Amino acid sequence: MESVRNIANAGLTSEVCGLARVLTKDLDACIDAGVGMIHTFVSTSDIQRIHTIKKSREEVVEMSVNAVQYIKDHGMRCMFSAMDATRTDLDYLIEVYRAVEDAGCDIINVPDTVGIIAPSGMYRLISKLDKEMNIPIDTHCHNDFGLAVANSLMAIEAGASQAQVTVNGLGERAGNADLAETVMSLHSIYGAKTSINTEYIVETARMVERYTGVQIPPHMPVVGENAFAHESGIHTHGVLENSDTFEPGIMTPEMVGHTRRIVLGKHAGKHAVLRSLQSANINPTEDQLDAIIKKVKMLADKGKRITDSDLYTIAFDILGKPEGMPAIDLKEVSVMTGNITTSTAVVKALFNGKECVTSNVGIGPVDAALKAVETLIGQHAKVTIHDFRIEAVTGGSDALAEVVIGVQNDNGRIVTARAANADIVLASVEALVTAINMLLKK
Amino acid sequence: MESVRNIANAGLTSEVCGLARVLTKDLDACIDAGVGMIHTFVSTSDIQRIHTIKKSREEVVEMSVNAVQYIKDHGMRCMFSAMDATRTDLDYLIEVYRAVEDAGCDIINVPDTVGIIAPSGMYRLISKLDKEMNIPIDTHCHNDFGLAVANSLMAIEAGASQAQVTVNGLGERAGNADLAETVMSLHSIYGAKTSINTEYIVETARMVERYTGVQIPPHMPVVGENAFAHESGIHTHGVLENSDTFEPGIMTPEMVGHTRRIVLGKHAGKHAVLRSLQSANINPTEDQLDAIIKKVKMLADKGKRITDSDLYTIAFDILGKPEGMPAIDLKEVSVMTGNITTSTAVVKALFNGKECVTSNVGIGPVDAALKAVETLIGQHAKVTIHDFRIEAVTGGSDALAEVVIGVQNDNGRIVTARAANADIVLASVEALVTAINMLLKK
Repeated sequence: MESVRNIANAGLTSEVCGLARVLTKDLDACIDAGVGMIHTFVSTSDIQRIHTIKKSREEVVEMSVNAVQYIKDHGMRCMFSAMDATRTDLDYLIEVYRAVEDAGCDIINVPDTVGIIAPSGMYRLISKLDKEMNIPIDTHCHNDFGLAVANSLMAIEAGASQAQVTVNGLGERAGNADLAETVMSLHSIYGAKTSINTEYIVETARMVERYTGVQIPPHMPVVGENAFAHESGIHTHGVLENSDTFEPGIMTPEMVGHTRRIVLGKHAGKHAVLRSLQSANINPTEDQLDAIIKKVKMLADKGKRITDSDLYTIAFDILGKPEGMPAIDLKEVSVMTGNITTSTAVVKALFNGKECVTSNVGIGPVDAALKAVETLIGQHAKVTIHDFRIEAVTGGSDALAEVVIGVQNDNGRIVTARAANADIVLASVEALVTAINMLLKK
Repeated sequence: MESVRNIANAGLTSEVCGLARVLTKDLDACIDAGVGMIHTFVSTSDIQRIHTIKKSREEVVEMSVNAVQYIKDHGMRCMFSAMDATRTDLDYLIEVYRAVEDAGCDIINVPDTVGIIAPSGMYRLISKLDKEMNIPIDTHCHNDFGLAVANSLMAIEAGASQAQVTVNGLGERAGNADLAETVMSLHSIYGAKTSINTEYIVETARMVERYTGVQIPPHMPVVGENAFAHESGIHTHGVLENSDTFEPGIMTPEMVGHTRRIVLGKHAGKHAVLRSLQSANINPTEDQLDAIIKKVKMLADKGKRITDSDLYTIAFDILGKPEGMPAIDLKEVSVMTGNITTSTAVVKALFNGKECVTSNVGIGPVDAALKAVETLIGQHAKVTIHDFRIEAVTGGSDALAEVVIGVQNDNGRIVTARAANADIVLASVEALVTAINMLLKK
């Protein structure tokens, strides 16, 4: 209640709506919290009515009407849901909705509470209700069969004027209709605008990801890391010519605040590999390119994504290395940590053949070790860590840890590298040194 | 080609179908690989035709017919796709499909290559093609707007007899229609059976997750960890009475090889919390239960899932601890590691009030530290590490690392605990010590 009150008092331009059972104590909590509208609900399907609230059909109608009247008596906007509507006897469902309409309800909500209706069924249900009712219709679709977005769209085609959605599709079980997918379908496929500023969709999704700790899957439509990524040779060739060939076109990455990526994997084609090499000033002959692609596919066949450093290493194996030695030739890393010890690391290395020793502290052994390497490189070149990721480790504490690090120079060029080691500190240092060496190569 | 040949020769009861452009070299590769059927395709939309293959409409028809005849001349089954069909001029699309039907094609595929059709549009398109064509229709739907499953189902309603699906919905960009969602919709919503043994769906999804390294998101319909998990008080109360109240019912966890879970979170209700406490022989009074729930919700409000050890800690705070002090009271952890140093850890702790110091080595600092704790506890009790997981860390090297450890006693009882610390070594040790202390409590 305190959270809802804070939201209601935050001075938002949105209408703040509280969710409440048809019980006076729930309704009072919403009223006390200062929301502008109440969405009240009660189970109407036989299965929920009999097993959870244990009321007769007549009692449910009476409770619903009383709740709506109570809300209207308090001068507030009222939405009413017949919970589990899609499993409720249709005649009884219409009876309940008509009763609340007569009681002054402003809008009805049709929830597919357990996500079991087909898109064509949703279209028929909403068409029927739209004929029977005079007030607007809203929907609340669950995603148990992956149909929440389609059901929301079909409801709108059939006459619904609102759809309840959640950021990243979060919700009970398989979640609810996703905001990004529903909004972008309406804008791009139907040409029907909503009040959403679509260019903030990806930023918003990532903010909710951080706050909830529920990661956005890479293949998630619209907002996922791969939503505008291309790997197969046929697709990347097309996209490099004209991005509309293998993207929706009606939805560009720019529209939702996303970026396009070409990924090298086992279906990589010539055009994508050549483009990646050329961006690092590596210009193979036709035969060398074929040999590089063959090795990229062999590595990718093992299920690995190809990092920049993987690609350069393969290319240098075939074209010959551009320089005789790496910028950093690591000789020693030593790290101490503990609950009563400040994490400290020492790094000894040859930089362009000259021995350097640096040390630094950090808030953990990985942080200290990377900072010691950064101190060393900072004496010679401008390189910053752009991104850092430890892949999840499962199994025993002796399982391989995999670290991916991207480093950036002052021209904005980014090179990523990966290292795997049972010692997470050494994996991190190896990935950083490899990335720096690749970046410093001409 | 070698992979496809291995699959074709594996003696599967499935029909093995090779995918090939309408080019003779692709078709020959399929024939040489020994597949029983070829799915050949060519771009028919203006945008792809002009920018990628650069052929006229007439040339595309000719190439398509030639490819189909070539396949049929080799005595094989043939499927033909007009790539980007949903963005192809409808009259021209029908012209292409009729030409390949006349050439002896066995089945046509209608791909929504960039995932831009609405479910109602797919219904109209397939209805039209079904009227124009005499051979069966297959679909290939992409998920750019989250509509791949719905579009496959609408195509089947309109007359398609097959749908291409992928395990876990994997595929270019946002992926393709998911096997589990499509099959379970057909079985459970439409009552239309496929040849899939649904009870292996979850096992198969997890196998593909392991092989591809692409994690199944927790909210993924049918196969995700949360697909049959219940958190909100209203939902869990219903499910504990009768699982059909807040699950599809037409799809049970058993049907797909999954299990039901009650999760404690910020919407947790009395019934679920009491059930979890009772399973650990903790029997609070009504007032104590209310106080425990209040604290569970406060913790969950911070976005955390409640582990066993979180719940017990809260309960013991309110009911009083069953013992006066934790078994292990950690005083000092010191760890050294490096590329020329054997990772070594020292642990000093009070065990039941008596000071102990142990040390051990490992293949990394985390491994060494956990082994030092295991050595310490091994002198007093039988406890083994059952599972160990470092959650993925992104951001900087100073981001919080989160470790979850489960420990088991010789009766097989498992207790899990979590710890977060910017130092990954300390997070691991804290999680292990917390889990051991909970397990050793009566």
